[in-house]
Amino acid sequence: MEDTEFDPSTHPHRRLNPLTNEHVLVSPHRTKRPWLGQVEPPQTTKLPEFDPDCYLCPGNTRAGGKQTDKYESTFAFENDFAAVLPPPGPAAPPSPHPLLATEPVQGGCDVICFHPRHDLTLARLAIPDIRKVINEWVRIYLLRGRQEGINYVQIFENKGAMMGCSNPHPHGQAWSLSVVPSLPATEIKNLKNYASTTITDPSSSAPRGPHGRPCLLCEYVHFEVSVEHESGRVVAKNDHWVALVPWWAIWPFEILLLPYKRHISNIASLTTEEKDAFAQIMSIVTKRYDNLFSCSFAYSLGIHQRPTPRAEGTSEDQDDDDEDISHLHLHFDPPLLRSASVRKFLVGFELMAEPQRDLTPEQAAQRLRSCSEVHYLDAIPSSEEK
Amino acid sequence: MEDTEFDPSTHPHRRLNPLTNEHVLVSPHRTKRPWLGQVEPPQTTKLPEFDPDCYLCPGNTRAGGKQTDKYESTFAFENDFAAVLPPPGPAAPPSPHPLLATEPVQGGCDVICFHPRHDLTLARLAIPDIRKVINEWVRIYLLRGRQEGINYVQIFENKGAMMGCSNPHPHGQAWSLSVVPSLPATEIKNLKNYASTTITDPSSSAPRGPHGRPCLLCEYVHFEVSVEHESGRVVAKNDHWVALVPWWAIWPFEILLLPYKRHISNIASLTTEEKDAFAQIMSIVTKRYDNLFSCSFAYSLGIHQRPTPRAEGTSEDQDDDDEDISHLHLHFDPPLLRSASVRKFLVGFELMAEPQRDLTPEQAAQRLRSCSEVHYLDAIPSSEEK
Ligand SMILES: [Zn+2]
Ligand SMILES: [Zn+2]
Repeated sequence: MEDTEFDPSTHPHRRLNPLTNEHVLVSPHRTKRPWLGQVEPPQTTKLPEFDPDCYLCPGNTRAGGKQTDKYESTFAFENDFAAVLPPPGPAAPPSPHPLLATEPVQGGCDVICFHPRHDLTLARLAIPDIRKVINEWVRIYLLRGRQEGINYVQIFENKGAMMGCSNPHPHGQAWSLSVVPSLPATEIKNLKNYASTTITDPSSSAPRGPHGRPCLLCEYVHFEVSVEHESGRVVAKNDHWVALVPWWAIWPFEILLLPYKRHISNIASLTTEEKDAFAQIMSIVTKRYDNLFSCSFAYSLGIHQRPTPRAEGTSEDQDDDDEDISHLHLHFDPPLLRSASVRKFLVGFELMAEPQRDLTPEQAAQRLRSCSEVHYLDAIPSSEEK
Repeated sequence: MEDTEFDPSTHPHRRLNPLTNEHVLVSPHRTKRPWLGQVEPPQTTKLPEFDPDCYLCPGNTRAGGKQTDKYESTFAFENDFAAVLPPPGPAAPPSPHPLLATEPVQGGCDVICFHPRHDLTLARLAIPDIRKVINEWVRIYLLRGRQEGINYVQIFENKGAMMGCSNPHPHGQAWSLSVVPSLPATEIKNLKNYASTTITDPSSSAPRGPHGRPCLLCEYVHFEVSVEHESGRVVAKNDHWVALVPWWAIWPFEILLLPYKRHISNIASLTTEEKDAFAQIMSIVTKRYDNLFSCSFAYSLGIHQRPTPRAEGTSEDQDDDDEDISHLHLHFDPPLLRSASVRKFLVGFELMAEPQRDLTPEQAAQRLRSCSEVHYLDAIPSSEEK
């Protein structure tokens, strides 16, 4: 083995995620292991356009007794069973021991219905309808993020029964909290650390963050779009956004979606053109996901950005706000591995030691690039299917 | 709300895990939320004592073509599809960009069959048979951990189809690596940090780590065993070991199992008596787990300890080795939440921001304490069942 040259598509190795400072173990030689585990049935059921039993369909009654509006576009409402309660709350009690630290958390949890139709996920929505979802995300980020006592807004979508999602009606959530949660806090710490300690090539044309300092994600994505297509990790790209399988991906078909032309800290700072491009690439990514295994692809989606918006009336041009160190990005974490019914489990060694993957990110990107941008359910049916 | 007194069993709050420096969000007010999600069938199938199609049953042939020994006690063999390859391996290539860090990893993966019987999990094994599993863990830890190029040994068990485990035959694994994986590396960093920066009560009777310095886990567990039973987190305790739902637990019925009478860095340092007590408490914990929902309880189990054993011939009495900063402990991470068929999913907000739980660790410990120590399958059948 010592005389062989290292080949990342053959030799076990690990890669560092600079956003979290954690590693992932890559075992590319192992992609032909036999599978003997749990097989989940492929999603073949066709959903109705309206489900009288769905509490998110327009006009229906929710478990808490409230009625969902007869909405025609997007629709947001406060979760009837929120994980947190509105501020203010009682103060922290004295800790019984320094190692038993407790911190009260307040906030609010919103549910965001993407569309009145029960059966239209992001992958099947028209781009103007995805654009409306983005507008709703911006509205909630600004509204919640400027409320007294709120220091972080987490917008996310959890899609698919495989992810434990209790309702197939296309919807996401926004949890607004008095604290910055662990993962985004770690990412921001590492972005700040990068900005203050990294010496970059002065001739590089990568965009820069606040105060002209280097931005970890601006640098990373600038490099990724320069890599030759066939060997790279880019899945889709338009004038403002790029979707890629990150170098440090944990999930088999994990995607990082982010703007690459300029440093943008949050969704409220996007121009109209950038929001249009955002809707377009969201459509491409979700369609390719569905086409990969001809199923409604399960995933968790999360928006990471500056914890709360800028104060009203300030803009990125006016102010070099340190909080703008955040580089807006979306994580897609999907569990599917080999087909509509074979999923990855984060268990055993991965739970106790370090995440591990067999398929390389480059191989995953290649698979996703080869998928059509026309949704398989919208493809022209063959003569046999008539 | 401001006038109310904070009550950890009512008010949302978060708790810090000092081993990882990450938080968990606790939403105790939410335990009565309606459940509409995926329901998995309870495990009612009775397994045969021998399965001719099981590659771990004695004498059968494995997928790679090799034959499993006709073993009568425990049996370990090298995984035919290991995640890593033996050292030495080729050196790291130059990185195409500083943010794309790659590090070759070498090592070996062992499979450890706990018992020849296909149907006997740890919960159903006699204590002397569990004792043999512990002996096998010690043997592999010493053997692998002293091999050239090995810097870490992770012993773990992944049990249950719900965890993606491909074979119900009771078995675990040991992955031996040239690197210390992310999670144990973080734990060791935080243990070292605690030892060098914490000022503890000099009159405390808690055991201490190497060089007489404070040990995070010695201090923590010493406090936990002092808490009144009814309000505490202790699930089971014997002369040397305690099983508890940690203050910072993520999984509903997560358990931390560790020695509490003295600082012990690894399983090879256990006395005969401590190993006997280890087998006894393993039996109690796994029986209570099975009895909680009357099913073969799914979990991932991992042993965290000093990365590799001491050099041959040295003992803890002879040497104040800095590596002994590790405090031997076992993590049980089980996914079940409310019944044999309702599981927790780490998705959405938890994947994107921070783990979250509804049931408090104190409530979970209370539930586990109320379970019998006699396995439900071994309980005397009622007259109707005859
Ligand atoms: Zn992020
Ligand atoms: Zn540990």
